[in-house]
Amino acid sequence: MGSIGEPEVTVLGWWLSMFDPRVRIALIEKGIEYEYIEEDLPNKSPLLLKHNPIHKLIPVLIHNGKSICESKIILHYIDESWMDGTPLLPSDPYLRSQAAFWADYIDKKIYDGAKRIWSSKGEEMQKGGQELIGYLKVLERELGEKPYFMGESFGYVDIVLISYYHHLLAYEILGKFSVKQDCPKLFGWTTKCMERESVSKTLADPKRIYEATIEFRIKSIDIED
Amino acid sequence: MGSIGEPEVTVLGWWLSMFDPRVRIALIEKGIEYEYIEEDLPNKSPLLLKHNPIHKLIPVLIHNGKSICESKIILHYIDESWMDGTPLLPSDPYLRSQAAFWADYIDKKIYDGAKRIWSSKGEEMQKGGQELIGYLKVLERELGEKPYFMGESFGYVDIVLISYYHHLLAYEILGKFSVKQDCPKLFGWTTKCMERESVSKTLADPKRIYEATIEFRIKSIDIED
Repeated sequence: MGSIGEPEVTVLGWWLSMFDPRVRIALIEKGIEYEYIEEDLPNKSPLLLKHNPIHKLIPVLIHNGKSICESKIILHYIDESWMDGTPLLPSDPYLRSQAAFWADYIDKKIYDGAKRIWSSKGEEMQKGGQELIGYLKVLERELGEKPYFMGESFGYVDIVLISYYHHLLAYEILGKFSVKQDCPKLFGWTTKCMERESVSKTLADPKRIYEATIEFRIKSIDIED
Repeated sequence: MGSIGEPEVTVLGWWLSMFDPRVRIALIEKGIEYEYIEEDLPNKSPLLLKHNPIHKLIPVLIHNGKSICESKIILHYIDESWMDGTPLLPSDPYLRSQAAFWADYIDKKIYDGAKRIWSSKGEEMQKGGQELIGYLKVLERELGEKPYFMGESFGYVDIVLISYYHHLLAYEILGKFSVKQDCPKLFGWTTKCMERESVSKTLADPKRIYEATIEFRIKSIDIED
């Protein structure tokens, strides 16, 4: 327990990050109170530099003064530190390895496809859209008829993927694809996830994300179209 | 247990991969017998395509017919499945998160620095060498005076990093740096790791790695120097 005035659990985050919501969703699912500190990324705070001196990136979880960095590593830490709450990962080693495999797939592929969309224009941007929908179709096949990625309960892989969802809505417009039409099962899954308070309260407004994505594109590439 | 003629544990690998030795080192450290099948990567085997249909990459661990992919995920699986052997990871959640952080750092940074060396030439290649030695110095600071990365025992982070070692010897020549001179503590750690049979038996001959790296460079970029 922290002493008076010192929160036991603090999250350093940034509203536009697709990695930040993961930590907050997991904490809410576990029923853990936390303080959220929004970073101003162009002007990183001394607190961020102190707690993530290697990468200087959010999200960071600070628990009783100790810092844990990298969103997937933080999810494992939360699951192992608060064992009483709903488990985020299965206990069987094989099922754990499969959950880790799909979370790794999501971060390797979805981020790459998304980057191709927001860092290009015209035909290249649409190719990025096709690439991204291809990866989402792989995830749709893995989901199959299950309510959640690991079976009956919302958990680790769901948290890792749903955190991209409101960004995907921006990429849909730019990359000219539709999760609802192209991946109907995955779309059904997003609807179920969004019904959870942990998710709906945490993901940023998709309109705000879209506007920030457009602004970011204009700054980083010479947009003519 | 597999039935007669069917090995319980099989590793699909490739001698030149820096990820393949991780799996074999971990299995030897745990005292687990395994069959090793060398893949011919330009002609991927039906066994590899069956057991890693998503990425089609080695290493793959096949345990009683179930496949586990991605080297760091395999290490976690081995540690959790054979609990009786020497533990590869600590049990404390915070220490586990720190081990995962450094393993992630190694794969993000060392691979990137190495790629910059073998995919460029001249001044750019030497810049890659400086970048790589910078990352190795961060690891040297993290190692400090400890015998191994996580303390007194050889484990997860050591396995993840030592698997790069014979490749680093090739990058040293190309990128004009010296682990021995620039990172003396890290060099001492490599010597200690190489004394372990699990490591010395598993890492490929550095001369063969160097020759293959040169051949690969010639094929992939227009080398004039």
